[in-house]
Amino acid sequence: MISNSISKHMAQMNPSLIREIFKAAQKENLISFAAGSPSAEEFPVSELSEAAERVFSAQGTTALSYGVTEGYQPLRQWITDALCREQICSEGDDVIVISGGQQALDFTAKCLIDEGDTVLVEAPTFLNALNTFRTYGARLAGVPMDEEGMDMDALEQALQKEPRVKFIYTIPNFQNPMGVTMSAARRSQLYALAEQYDVMILEDDPYGKLRYSGEPVAAVKTLDQGKRVIYTSSFSKIIAPGIRVAYLCAPKELMAKMVVAKQCVDVHTNMLSQLLVYDYLTHYDLEEHVRVCCEHYREKRDAMLAAVERAFPAEVSVTRPEGGLFLWVTLPEGYSGMEFYQHVVEAGVAPVPGAPFFADNMPDDRGMRLNFSVPSIRQIEEGIARMGGELRKFIQ
Amino acid sequence: MISNSISKHMAQMNPSLIREIFKAAQKENLISFAAGSPSAEEFPVSELSEAAERVFSAQGTTALSYGVTEGYQPLRQWITDALCREQICSEGDDVIVISGGQQALDFTAKCLIDEGDTVLVEAPTFLNALNTFRTYGARLAGVPMDEEGMDMDALEQALQKEPRVKFIYTIPNFQNPMGVTMSAARRSQLYALAEQYDVMILEDDPYGKLRYSGEPVAAVKTLDQGKRVIYTSSFSKIIAPGIRVAYLCAPKELMAKMVVAKQCVDVHTNMLSQLLVYDYLTHYDLEEHVRVCCEHYREKRDAMLAAVERAFPAEVSVTRPEGGLFLWVTLPEGYSGMEFYQHVVEAGVAPVPGAPFFADNMPDDRGMRLNFSVPSIRQIEEGIARMGGELRKFIQ
Repeated sequence: MISNSISKHMAQMNPSLIREIFKAAQKENLISFAAGSPSAEEFPVSELSEAAERVFSAQGTTALSYGVTEGYQPLRQWITDALCREQICSEGDDVIVISGGQQALDFTAKCLIDEGDTVLVEAPTFLNALNTFRTYGARLAGVPMDEEGMDMDALEQALQKEPRVKFIYTIPNFQNPMGVTMSAARRSQLYALAEQYDVMILEDDPYGKLRYSGEPVAAVKTLDQGKRVIYTSSFSKIIAPGIRVAYLCAPKELMAKMVVAKQCVDVHTNMLSQLLVYDYLTHYDLEEHVRVCCEHYREKRDAMLAAVERAFPAEVSVTRPEGGLFLWVTLPEGYSGMEFYQHVVEAGVAPVPGAPFFADNMPDDRGMRLNFSVPSIRQIEEGIARMGGELRKFIQ
Repeated sequence: MISNSISKHMAQMNPSLIREIFKAAQKENLISFAAGSPSAEEFPVSELSEAAERVFSAQGTTALSYGVTEGYQPLRQWITDALCREQICSEGDDVIVISGGQQALDFTAKCLIDEGDTVLVEAPTFLNALNTFRTYGARLAGVPMDEEGMDMDALEQALQKEPRVKFIYTIPNFQNPMGVTMSAARRSQLYALAEQYDVMILEDDPYGKLRYSGEPVAAVKTLDQGKRVIYTSSFSKIIAPGIRVAYLCAPKELMAKMVVAKQCVDVHTNMLSQLLVYDYLTHYDLEEHVRVCCEHYREKRDAMLAAVERAFPAEVSVTRPEGGLFLWVTLPEGYSGMEFYQHVVEAGVAPVPGAPFFADNMPDDRGMRLNFSVPSIRQIEEGIARMGGELRKFIQ
């Protein structure tokens, strides 16, 4: 019975390849570059513990009660003010608190995608975004990337070719998985193309505050006036991911639908978490905390790039991210990242093979993602050295 | 642009009528019977505060990190064991922790509904379930209710008539909004019909532990062996709703899809909340806590029924729930609950008008839902007296 009952969209979905890979990679002494998270060493455990004491003693009932779908109002206002200062939120927009950044992808797909509509995505892009869009029956078309972000000629061609594009999905800062940042010029071009072809943009910015070098680039959303850009960011990477607090800024008319979607999906974001984050924001210095995180991650990024320089053969290219959590390795033409992965895991190092990050129309198996935020500098140096040795054996 | 971009399913969704009604009902001195929640007086604030201290000092990093999609394993195991003891979980089933009971409705719809499939629902039923199923393009067909639950002849007729029924949605214990409990005989009939017509059942049981009189009736899921019943319950009504921890027990094959769905929707349930609930379950006596809650709610239910007896005209009927949070008022033929609502709010009492709880094929405007868990006994007596006065004026 059950097999026949599964909806068409879910019938085609399988457990994440990467999850299965991770399970296979539970070796002892494995050095993992497979994480997608900030370092637990940076979590403000004692500050949040103090926050919990204050919240339970002064607002225990509020923290344990049902809340409004849009979010705990003081937190929502704090976020709105911060986004307005950065010109991300304008008069035409509204802000809601969501249960982690993944919800922004789910709500955008739910509110915009009809069966067979196309989403244009960076190639490669965040794997779990591809899966979320697939659950709504979206066609996914990849747009090639270089060190400046999406290739704009290829984007325009895709907009011309694909008949029913609903939105363009981009991670402009320190992209997952490539680590590259879209230049200001490309952001303007992206927005202009979205205007010209009358499509929406989903701008996913979980890593934007984690910049270790170079100058900040204004969000695509700053070019918008409540018209066509959905902007999302999160406290997961700069405070902690386990408490699932993120936010969404979108044109009011669309936001009205997103609020209905949220009511149908999980009613409201965890109240205790919202109160903890708000207490943290009002009692501590988030900017200073982020500055310290950036210092540590910068050292790790630099250590990884230096180790790569020493250990990788010249034919293997890597990106040089100005922030975020990842860098991206590309093998020479004709070599498979998935195949190399099997070798390198045997040697005790786990990257993430890159093939699953590509939409179906653009298969590419030459990439691998390396995380530098979680491993220690020692692990980075040792792991990259081992990986370099394996690469030299693998590439003849 | 945006209006044209909204997906077909979301374009038809509007902000909940009830929410709008609530906003209109923000009068001073209003006695509200409109809540859908347990009483905040019963929340174990100091216990959860102690739990937070323990969790932050011993497992701070775990509480703040990403977790696995299926749930924090010790909590998941605790829930599995409890469900196995009640014969709800069998060999063929799997259990996951979810972010509140609403997610069970979302995941069931996502995993089972293709555009145009039918869901058979109790008439009336939980309003937010209707909306969730609508966002997946489901047809909704109501099955009439009486004091023993769904009318089984009507259910069989619906199964014969509707061509593509995917599942039957039921709240067998202390139903929302009617407060009635499905008899054991009806549960067996329901399961037999589901077998005969080869459809799934979604058994939603948020109130089951809140019984104030009568004998417990075994869950429909106890008749199943990992075959066709999806069972969901929650800690929202017996611990606290703001921390959003609930669970789902379903046949393994379907659960594999639900896990993929959860990964695409919110990755995993809030880790801090899961650790708090687990700490609470292992350091305190949940059964004793529930016993005390039941004692208080029983007094309130009895106070409401006694006040109704004194104040309501004989033509108005009310249900006599053995547990849960609600009772249901039915006006005589020809009178509108929505119209009465306007009068009674003017008189300073807010029930919830019943019309939105009915699927479109079975419009019925004679009902109203009354909550007795949140108001005080004094408010119950005063509010029901006022409402009775208004009823006597309204019904000529």
